[in-house]
Formats: sequence, C-alpha cells, structure tokens
Amino acid sequence: MYRTHTCGQLRIEDCGKEVTLSGWVQKSRDLGSMTFIDLRDRYGITQLVCDDTTDKSVYETAKTLSREYVIQVKGLVRERSSKNNKIPTGDIEIEVKDINILTTSKIPPFTIEDNTDGGDELRMKYRYLDLRRNCVKQNLELRHRLAMMVRNYLSNENFLEIETPFLIRSTPEGARDFVVPSRMNPNQFYALPQSPQQYKQLLMVSGFDRYFQIVKCFRDEDLRADRQPEFTQIDCEMSFVEQEDVLNMFEGLIKSLFKQEKGLEFGKFQRMTWHDAMKYYGSDKPDLRFDMKFVELNDVFQGKGFSVFDDAELVVGICAKGCANYTRKQLDALTDFVKRPQVGAKGLVYVKYNEDGSFKSSVDKFYTPEDLQKVAEKFGAEKGDLMLVMSGKTMQVRTQLCALRLEMGSQLNLKDPFNYAILWVTDFPLLEWNEDDQRFYAMHHPFTAPNPEDYPEKLDTDPGAVRANAYDLVINGTEVGGGSVRIHDRNMQLRMFEALGFTEESAKQQFGFLMSAFEYGAPPHAGLAFGFDRLCAIFAGADNIRDFIAFPKNNSGRDLMSDSPNFISDEQLEELYLALKPVEK
Amino acid sequence: MYRTHTCGQLRIEDCGKEVTLSGWVQKSRDLGSMTFIDLRDRYGITQLVCDDTTDKSVYETAKTLSREYVIQVKGLVRERSSKNNKIPTGDIEIEVKDINILTTSKIPPFTIEDNTDGGDELRMKYRYLDLRRNCVKQNLELRHRLAMMVRNYLSNENFLEIETPFLIRSTPEGARDFVVPSRMNPNQFYALPQSPQQYKQLLMVSGFDRYFQIVKCFRDEDLRADRQPEFTQIDCEMSFVEQEDVLNMFEGLIKSLFKQEKGLEFGKFQRMTWHDAMKYYGSDKPDLRFDMKFVELNDVFQGKGFSVFDDAELVVGICAKGCANYTRKQLDALTDFVKRPQVGAKGLVYVKYNEDGSFKSSVDKFYTPEDLQKVAEKFGAEKGDLMLVMSGKTMQVRTQLCALRLEMGSQLNLKDPFNYAILWVTDFPLLEWNEDDQRFYAMHHPFTAPNPEDYPEKLDTDPGAVRANAYDLVINGTEVGGGSVRIHDRNMQLRMFEALGFTEESAKQQFGFLMSAFEYGAPPHAGLAFGFDRLCAIFAGADNIRDFIAFPKNNSGRDLMSDSPNFISDEQLEELYLALKPVEK
Repeated sequence: MYRTHTCGQLRIEDCGKEVTLSGWVQKSRDLGSMTFIDLRDRYGITQLVCDDTTDKSVYETAKTLSREYVIQVKGLVRERSSKNNKIPTGDIEIEVKDINILTTSKIPPFTIEDNTDGGDELRMKYRYLDLRRNCVKQNLELRHRLAMMVRNYLSNENFLEIETPFLIRSTPEGARDFVVPSRMNPNQFYALPQSPQQYKQLLMVSGFDRYFQIVKCFRDEDLRADRQPEFTQIDCEMSFVEQEDVLNMFEGLIKSLFKQEKGLEFGKFQRMTWHDAMKYYGSDKPDLRFDMKFVELNDVFQGKGFSVFDDAELVVGICAKGCANYTRKQLDALTDFVKRPQVGAKGLVYVKYNEDGSFKSSVDKFYTPEDLQKVAEKFGAEKGDLMLVMSGKTMQVRTQLCALRLEMGSQLNLKDPFNYAILWVTDFPLLEWNEDDQRFYAMHHPFTAPNPEDYPEKLDTDPGAVRANAYDLVINGTEVGGGSVRIHDRNMQLRMFEALGFTEESAKQQFGFLMSAFEYGAPPHAGLAFGFDRLCAIFAGADNIRDFIAFPKNNSGRDLMSDSPNFISDEQLEELYLALKPVEK
Repeated sequence: MYRTHTCGQLRIEDCGKEVTLSGWVQKSRDLGSMTFIDLRDRYGITQLVCDDTTDKSVYETAKTLSREYVIQVKGLVRERSSKNNKIPTGDIEIEVKDINILTTSKIPPFTIEDNTDGGDELRMKYRYLDLRRNCVKQNLELRHRLAMMVRNYLSNENFLEIETPFLIRSTPEGARDFVVPSRMNPNQFYALPQSPQQYKQLLMVSGFDRYFQIVKCFRDEDLRADRQPEFTQIDCEMSFVEQEDVLNMFEGLIKSLFKQEKGLEFGKFQRMTWHDAMKYYGSDKPDLRFDMKFVELNDVFQGKGFSVFDDAELVVGICAKGCANYTRKQLDALTDFVKRPQVGAKGLVYVKYNEDGSFKSSVDKFYTPEDLQKVAEKFGAEKGDLMLVMSGKTMQVRTQLCALRLEMGSQLNLKDPFNYAILWVTDFPLLEWNEDDQRFYAMHHPFTAPNPEDYPEKLDTDPGAVRANAYDLVINGTEVGGGSVRIHDRNMQLRMFEALGFTEESAKQQFGFLMSAFEYGAPPHAGLAFGFDRLCAIFAGADNIRDFIAFPKNNSGRDLMSDSPNFISDEQLEELYLALKPVEK
C-alpha cells in the first residue's frame, strides 16, 4: 500500500497516528540539525520533519531529496510547534520514520508554484508540469464539477446524453471542416463535426425529445487568441417546445450551476432584443456589469453648424460618471484609443460637466452652454460627469462606441469578473447580407426558424429585417451559448434555402439526409449549445479558455508538448492514396 | 404549449382532465362509426378516439391521418371500455376535441415496430426512423443510464473526468491511426487517438491521481462484424496504487452498475490466471456461464497405438453432460464444425458413456473398455455423458477445443445472456513473439509493468515467460475491459523498449514526450479501460454493439444514412496541399 492518507487529509485529531504518505517533494529546507520537507499531492501539502531522533540512514536519504522527487514516507503525526494557518494541514507535521524514493526528478524547467517563473511557451511544452501547479489543477477540478452538475441537472430533467458520430460527412456551409481521409474508401474523406447540429435534429425526428451531449467539436479556422481547433460544447435539443420553454429550461440549468458552485442566486434573467442590444450597447453581447448605456443625440447636436455631426447618420454617446476631472492627456489617450485601426473611428468629442456647473467640450465653438446643458439632460448627466460622443454610420459608430464603453469599464474598474451580469439576447436577424458574395447568409444556420410575425411576408419584401427565433446567453459581455427554434416544416425549409441562394439540388447535396428525414414527420423542435471551455473560464473569473483545457494547442494549432501535428510515414500516405503537394514559401 | 402530458403519462386517476398531447401516429383504425388512433412519443402510447360525438371537421381531419404524421391533440381523458393491460396507459383513452397536424409524413420504408419488416441496410439508411422503434430507443436509454452511473460512481470516488485531445500525434506502434491533415501546418498531420493512453499517463505525472473519461477512440482497422472505426471507452487511471487496488476499485464499479440497473448482486469476482484460462478453457476470455472445463488426457490416451494421439503434444477434451444420446449425424456435424477453416482441427474423437454403463467411441479399436473407463474417470463423467477429445500442438488444440466448447454451450442452451459469469483474468504474458517479424511485441502495450517476480532475471533468460501485471475483466466470454500496472521507472522502461527491439532513439521518436515526462517524477500508476459499447450490449443481453450506437457505420466504415465518407472539393484539397492518387482497380 502506497499511502494510508493523502497529503491534504491529516488534522490535529490525527496526532499520534502512524501514517504512510506518498507525493512529490515541493521543497526541502535543511536547517542543520533539522530538515523540513513539504510533501505535495493532489489534495494538499503536509510537512515532514527529520531531526536528530531520526534514524541516521533515513536522515541521509532525506538530505538527498530534491524538488519533484516522488517519495513514500512512513512516520508519526504530531502537533507542530509553529502552526501554519494558511493550509488545512498546518497544525500537524510528520515525524519521519522511513523514506522510500519512488522516482527521482530532474530539476524542473520552472517552479511549481502559483506564481511560476515559467513563460507561456515553456509551460506549454512541459504542460504535465504546469498541471502540477495548484491554480491550473483547480481549473480542471472546477471543469469536472461543472460537467457533473450539467449532466445531473439535465438527466434529472429527462434529457438523454446520446453520442453522435465524430467521423461524418463534410459540408461546405459554415466554417472550414477538418477532414479525415478514408483508407477503406479511397479518395474519400470524413469530416470532424463542427457541431452535432444535424445529428441532434435527426434525434428529434427520431422522437428523443430531450437530448444533450458534452462533446468535442472541431473548426479549422485561423486561430485568434483564445480559440482552439478543438473545443467542447454542451449541446442540447428539445422537441414539442417553443422558444420560451427552451429559455426557461436552460436558465434553470445556469442558475443551478451558479447556486451549486458559487452559492449565488439570480432572479429571472434579463432579456434584451438584438435590436436594443445594438442600439443601447453597440453589441449583440452587451456587458451589463456596468451602465453607460448609449444615448442618441442627433436632435441636440445636429443643425448647429458642426458638419461632422450634421453629416452623420448617428450621433451617439456615453456618460462616464465622475470623470469630468479627466486630464487633457487622458482625453487624448481615449481619442487615440478610438482611432486605433481595431476600432477605426475618426475622432471623439468630449463634454465635461464640471463640478462648478460649467461645461467644457472639444466642440465649444459650435455649441453654447445652453446646447450642452440640453446634451447633459439627454444623458441625465450630473456635475462631475464626462460625456463622450461619436458619430458616423449607424452600425459602425455603435461598434466603435461599444469599444470605448468597454475601455471605460476597464479604466473605471467596473468589470469585476465575479459580479455576474447575465442576459438573454433575443430576436436576432435571420439573415446577414454579405457584400463580397452579394448574397444573404444565415446568421445562425439555415435551419433557424423565422419569427412568425415576419414570415412569410417580410422574407419577400425586406429579407434583412426578418427576425429569427434565435437567442444567445450572454454573461459579462461574453456569448456563452446560443441557439434557435428550428424549422420543422419542409416547405418553409425550402423557402429558406431559396432565400439563401441554394437551389433545391445544392441544398439536397449538402443537407440531403436531414431534408429526407423531414419528410417522415419532424416534430417542432429547438435547441442551443453552450461553449463549455468558456463557461468554465467565466466561473473561475478568468479570461483565457486555454487554462481550462488539460492539453491545449497554441495559436498555430500546435501542441508544443508532443510536437504535433507532424509528418507521417510514406507508408501511411501510400495506404491513403494521398500525395503531398509542395508548399510555396 | 405543445402538450400538457406525454403519451406515457396518463392513468385512470386522470379521467376527466382536459389534456393536450403531441406525438406520432403509430396506427389508426377506422371502424366506421369510430376511429381509434394510437399516438406515440418517447414515453409511450396513448389511444385517441373519435366517434359520432366528435366535431365533424375534427373527425374529417382524423380520417386523413396516416402513419408517422406528427399531430397535436386536445381532448378529455376517459376510462376505456376494453382495457389494455399491456401498456401503462391501457386503462384510459382520449376523447378527441381537436386535432392539429404539425407535420405530415410519407409512408415510412419499414414498419416502426419491434418486429420490423425492414432489413439491415434499409434500417441503416433510415436510421432516424429505426431509432423510433421501441427496442432501439431503449438501448440508447440504457446507455445513458449506464454512463450516468459510471460518472457518478467514479466522481464519488474522487475521480476527475478530464478531457484529453482528439487531434494528437501519430504513432506507428499499435493499430493504424486515422490521420487529419493540418492546413495551418502544411504537409503535417494530426492523428485521432486510438486511446488516451499516453495522455492519461501524463495526467498521473501531473498528480491527478484518479482520472477517468468516457471518450471516443478511433482505429483504422479492417472492420470485422461488430467492430466500429469509432468506439467509446471508459478510460481510467490511478496513481499510488497496486494491481489489487485497481481490481477492487473497478470491481466495485461493475457491481454497482449491475445492482443499480438490474438489481443483481455479486460476491467477489472470480480470478483466474491467463495460464489457467488457457489450460482449462483454451481462451483468455473464458465463458464461465457453463462448466465443460478442459481435461488433459495424455496419460490415459497415449501409448496405446493410436498414432494421432501418441504423436500429439496435447490430448485434451471436454465432457458434455447427458449427450451420450447424440446421433451419428450430430457427431458428424460436430466433426465438421471443428474441421471448418475458422477452427482448423483435423478431427474429433468422441467417447459415449452409455446409460447402460458401456462405452462407444470413434477409436474403439485402439482402446479397451477399461481404457475408456479411465478416461471417464479423468473427466468425472457419469452414465449418459459424451466426451469429446482433440489433440495437437498445445496452444492450437486448446483454441480449437475452445471453439467446440462454445458451440456445445450454444447447442445445450447454456449461454443465457442474463446469467452473468464475471471474472478477472490476470498474469497475462508481457511479450508476444511474432513469427513474421521475428521479434517480441508488447501484448498489452510497451508501458506495461512486468510481474516483479519475473523481472529482471527472466526478461533476459526467457522473455516469453515473463508475466505482466496486466488484467482483463471478462463477462460471459467477452473481454469487457483490461489494463495494467504501468512502468514508472525510466530505466525499466528503457529495458522494456530494448526487449521490444526499439533503440533509445526510435523509442524517443515515438514516445518522446512521455519519456521526457518520466524524468520529472512519475508516480507508480495503473489503470484500465472498458469498452462502453460492449458493456451496454452485455447489460441488454445483446450480441451486436451496433444497436447501442445512435449512428453506427457499416463494415466498410460507411454511414449509409449520410453517404459518408465522400469526396471533398478541389478547394479543400488545395488548401491542405494534398493530391489524390489514382486507385488501382
């Protein structure tokens, strides 16, 4: 038996017990007549002590121990003379009787501490050592707990977890597929699923009215920071439901996770239409941890001779409470911020509502104090506030102002990661116009049902204005999940394909088996999927999903630890009837 | 709201309630003045009735309903006049008030019944309809329940479910990998995991001392019946444990599944060494639902002038209770059975111990009744028994006799699928000699630890005789899971690689990152994996795993429903720097 207890288990009540522990040497301090060793395992750290009462040969062994050696120790639990109240085992220590070195270790390339000296690349290359760090380990423990809670919640609600295939058919619509050459069907390929979308809809056709799956999905996209080629979804679908049923069910799930994991309770989640989200926050995933709602100002700013505003489709601003004392330098920095190519604005107008009741703005020569007073009234601004105003094409300026709003949120420390602001965004547009291809694309996917109020009339007259029965769950400005009511009527589906520029034939080629299935009695159904990596990060108050994945890939899709992907043998290529083409440099 | 109740929910107590149901039309019987409709959903079937009290237009709609239409019905629950005690809703029916056709259906290509008229191919092509059949649906429900039980059991035992990557590095050892071309790293490939073996060992190095995962694995092998290119494992690993700890932990898991799902309780699982399994049952996965243990007979059969037996390395037989009345024809059929190329024996000797105490054998001219009496004593045979004897090279004849034993088990109806005979097979050989390559291969995998009693001495003197700390769980003659204690000592690992004919360099190339990890303090660890598809089939008493997979592939690795794999576009190939090579016909 390698151990009687773990390194996180022993307490003052255990004093006097003979125990055996196994673990890693976290550190060792040789004080001449005494040696202290911190022994670590998944559960905690226990202090070991050797002194002049220790058997000589055992003491000699203790002195040879180096960081990250794996050892087994027998000894007696005793009360510490100087207690450590920072760790649960801090009241006791082990009087060492015997030490067995299980395996030695080279000096690790970085310290196994929360504040490690290892850089990103090094930690990724030695991910197995990085995972020994308490902060990384805790992320995976959190992930396990959340996954269990999700499964138990949904299973109790009569959902079945059903595994869908990983080797499926490649479909050109959507993001780019990873493909898998088939040896048994030469020159043909499987694709890895971008999501189980079509399979879960088939399961609805099959009568499994409540399906879920925590499942890996794959997208061969150019990776931005914080995007992984393989990622995990909580994928869900229900039959005989309307949008309201879906929102209520999954609101219940999310509330249950917050309650169980963090002891937090929420009332009914706020709902906001996509239209309002864009109008008031310039984003389909508004961060509601702080206010700074957009105020539209065309009526008070236009017609006073300031041509930038006069010519703009929209003049819109936010009010930063208590920021009238911003210096010239700070204001210039904000202007520079919105002028960065990532934001792309031409400029920024400020109006200070000073503590003494006077106004100071960057456009004083166009506006009288009375004009600015009216502006302040529109904002509901008070003395001491700073108003920041932008103008331009409606959707463009909204996006730009959104960037500024989020920047102000950061500057004013309004983005506490543990202050959770949760909302549903609803009524997304059904279609999105693509200027390059001069066609509409499905905003969600081609199976999304239109809002019955807008169908069929508006699809003919004003396709871009048709709302979808689609919804996203947004937490702290991040889209955590989303879904839609699906089309279950074959004629409506054909009508949709038409609007998306598919011929019946090209639609059949891509979605043939789903369309065939719909000929045999499809129930009304709807669903959604959550990004599980992201959800874990949000629960931990973290930004980067990579820390919540045991073995993540870097931004080039490489695993630095196993040096993968890599070249395969000529025999492998031969068997697959594949040849490599040279890569131009 | 599409429904107030499901089709499996209503009981006699609900009579008088106004309800709304939704589901599929299972069948419709028009009796002239009355129409009965069976409405089906995932939860059951409810009978609907229209008669002369029904609104005329509703009755007209009812008459248009055809099989598999999806409808919504409003009506009144009432007691049936003629009850059906075969279904839980059999006491009630719904007096129809309104019918809303949600979607129509074409006539399905086969009947949606347990005994369907659809053949295998047709059912695979329309798998979404096949899944509507109660018997197939129940398999997936069972699978969901078992997965939940496994997760809850292991989670309660402090195991963490940790997701390992699907896009990994290809390693030539083991079965053939499926590979995935990388677009971002042109000419390089990922592989899909055959199992998370190396990653779970890395997690042990990281200190996660109890890991599990229910996970898809991939093998590009020529498919035998009942093998799938993608399959699901319950993958587990533990640190600071010995073999005994692992066997006890997972014996507990399996017992808990049988208890929860089937109400069955088992004592301590039998254990049998690989050596005994081969000696007494001719198989490393003996079916212990019935006896017919092998009896070795060299001493009683040899030296009497029957050269077939005299020249054989092993003479061995089984005793079939009460089969002395087998006819000539039956005995010939058994001889034909063992002579089939799949079994490959030269012949079969029988000895009947007749009810009158006389003997009749196919080798009477070589053996006296006294000789045969001794044979009967070796078997412990009684009057009325039939002894079946074979001879040849030891391992070969054991395998052949095993086939005969299993055939006799079938003929005598001794293979009740719900009579579970469970055992651990232990002490597998570490190495397996491959005649073609003239080298040893790891029987389990190259990280399996040798039995300490046989290491290091025997590895030098008699490598084939070295036992491994490896174990399989066998239920009803099927290997359900298996695993081993792993090597955690780097020097022992190098010594093993040497025995397997790896150079240090070639080992590094294949297992480099695991070997590097082992330099930084690997704990003693061990694990195992269960075949989850197979486990589900065993719980359902079924033979074929395909029925426990929602969307399986056929024996050519094809999905007939989506017609996958399939050709991909030139653009896709272009982006991946791949060219197809022509396939010779």
